[in-house]
Amino acid sequence: MDPRRFNFSSGPAVLPEPVLLQLREELWSIDGTGIGIAEHSHRGPLFDHVLADAQWAVREVSGLDDEWEVLFLQGGATMHFALIPMNFLGERTTAAFADTGTWTAKAIAEAKRYGKVDVLWSGKDTHWDRVPKQGDLPRCDGARYFHYCSNNTIEGTQYAGPLDVGAPLVCDASSDIFSRRYDLGLHALVFAGSQKNIGMSGNVLVLVRREFLATAREDLSPMLSYRAHAAAGSRLNTPNTLGIRALGLCCRWILDQGGVAAIEARNEAKAQLLYHEIDMSGGFYRGCAHTTSRSRMNVTFRLASESLEQAFAAEAARNDLDGLAGHRSFGGIRASIYNAMPHAGCEALASFMREFMRTRG
Amino acid sequence: MDPRRFNFSSGPAVLPEPVLLQLREELWSIDGTGIGIAEHSHRGPLFDHVLADAQWAVREVSGLDDEWEVLFLQGGATMHFALIPMNFLGERTTAAFADTGTWTAKAIAEAKRYGKVDVLWSGKDTHWDRVPKQGDLPRCDGARYFHYCSNNTIEGTQYAGPLDVGAPLVCDASSDIFSRRYDLGLHALVFAGSQKNIGMSGNVLVLVRREFLATAREDLSPMLSYRAHAAAGSRLNTPNTLGIRALGLCCRWILDQGGVAAIEARNEAKAQLLYHEIDMSGGFYRGCAHTTSRSRMNVTFRLASESLEQAFAAEAARNDLDGLAGHRSFGGIRASIYNAMPHAGCEALASFMREFMRTRG
Repeated sequence: MDPRRFNFSSGPAVLPEPVLLQLREELWSIDGTGIGIAEHSHRGPLFDHVLADAQWAVREVSGLDDEWEVLFLQGGATMHFALIPMNFLGERTTAAFADTGTWTAKAIAEAKRYGKVDVLWSGKDTHWDRVPKQGDLPRCDGARYFHYCSNNTIEGTQYAGPLDVGAPLVCDASSDIFSRRYDLGLHALVFAGSQKNIGMSGNVLVLVRREFLATAREDLSPMLSYRAHAAAGSRLNTPNTLGIRALGLCCRWILDQGGVAAIEARNEAKAQLLYHEIDMSGGFYRGCAHTTSRSRMNVTFRLASESLEQAFAAEAARNDLDGLAGHRSFGGIRASIYNAMPHAGCEALASFMREFMRTRG
Repeated sequence: MDPRRFNFSSGPAVLPEPVLLQLREELWSIDGTGIGIAEHSHRGPLFDHVLADAQWAVREVSGLDDEWEVLFLQGGATMHFALIPMNFLGERTTAAFADTGTWTAKAIAEAKRYGKVDVLWSGKDTHWDRVPKQGDLPRCDGARYFHYCSNNTIEGTQYAGPLDVGAPLVCDASSDIFSRRYDLGLHALVFAGSQKNIGMSGNVLVLVRREFLATAREDLSPMLSYRAHAAAGSRLNTPNTLGIRALGLCCRWILDQGGVAAIEARNEAKAQLLYHEIDMSGGFYRGCAHTTSRSRMNVTFRLASESLEQAFAAEAARNDLDGLAGHRSFGGIRASIYNAMPHAGCEALASFMREFMRTRG
């Protein structure tokens, strides 16, 4: 098999190698059935087990109890920017937001189609270099919910923890779910595209408190309705069966690593390797995020010029460090170092940063 | 690797073994990149190539030209039962239907949410044993579109060809797309969940004529809008990247077999093996479909009792012939024999049918 390169892509992103090796086997035949995971009926006993196992693994990793529904849906997080207000907002109710960059802006635009919006805080004035802390935004007790993005992939910022603003919390955790200890239980709904920390693209994990779900609209097309998906146990129609298997295996892999507390320690150490290089570079590398809001998932920084940034990304790629160019809307360099990025990958990148500065600084 | 069993599941369904073997390799590293197909950025050069290749393969297999958009979307065909009327219907316009079973019934229910519905024909009186022929239904020139299902997976019926009813044709081809020569060019929109003939679950292929697309609503949430998906070239957000690769490889495999004309001949021969056993059984096996509407994809039949049917499916499974129980809503036996089912699988099933009748008849 080909040697693997370090993949710093922001998503789809690096997967744990044990998961890839298991999926390779299961594509051909799973559990000795002589039929591949992608070929089994979604109503058959083999997939019953796969689905139950994935739900079990999500509950184990998250610590969420039976007060929560665990749903495996499709469409990417972007679809759910529309479905959440469609399900929970009405013309006379308000969704509150903290606007911390590209993904919250998209979610705000969608919510405006289905109800009222109140943007309590915006990072625009400081070019999205930080997220709000408790006390930075007014309470919004009357809002239907407060939507925020726990980690901003493009800008490289991350909340230290959930804020208490009075309204039910809705968290877009696409880029940091199950990467650290985080009290999901304080929320009403948590959703995450699976292609960063928990699998491949084409699945969205939606965790929703039953009590909150019971307040959703009942008159939507079933495929647009969280109630309908929950009532059907994520099998309203044929789900992305292979994707659900990959999600379950990624959660099992997290458990094998010692759970989110152990993963958090590893992720913290990986991020510190890179932030250390930025902080020690005397301004050669300039972090995009304010130090109080730095992401442990996406380390973003600038060099003196765009041409130097391009040279950095290209030379890194020649050194088997792939996917380091920043998002096309934001520029700069971005190292995405999700759960499955090995410590050795961050060591190699830190070493490359030192060498690049030595030759170009 | 495990020996493979014959898988007669209705979908997700058997995949071509060369496609599975290639996907196994590409999960670990695709095109020598050292990064797996599911880990590459959907905006990177590798996936640019994968997407373009899948589009090329679909155009080659379908014969559709640049007047058509080729879209890779999500949600299953069921999602598109809602999206089609949402995009093309209004309160004062009508969608016409031929009701040939479970899937058209679901599509009709969705269309009623978004506009008027005119059911021109229903198979209910003959327990869904046939589909209409040209002349069986009135013209519907004033309708916004006429929606039909070219192959009815559950009931085992299939149209001989598209009907001319005056209105633009919308075809749910989920269970027979690219299985035979069929003039897709006569349609306005063709859609198909990919998990039967063209890949794994979690992708939907939507083929839409640009002229028809230009008549769609413009005020929908982007994720619900075919216009928005087309404008973004199926990358409005992160698509199901591995699923698109699988779809492209399945289409390439069809081309390798000689294209749809060659596949059609193989599928016809496979189906005849099974219908021959039914017709020669002297009533031991009773075909569900009227002989004029028999499906080449899903061969459905009954035995004298439900207990005998259960014995048939269970004994077949012990003989490595899997997934033969009929749909839970319809009962009986169903052999789904899509493109990737080998001729040997149908021979083995025909032989089993003879043996089962010999011992139980």
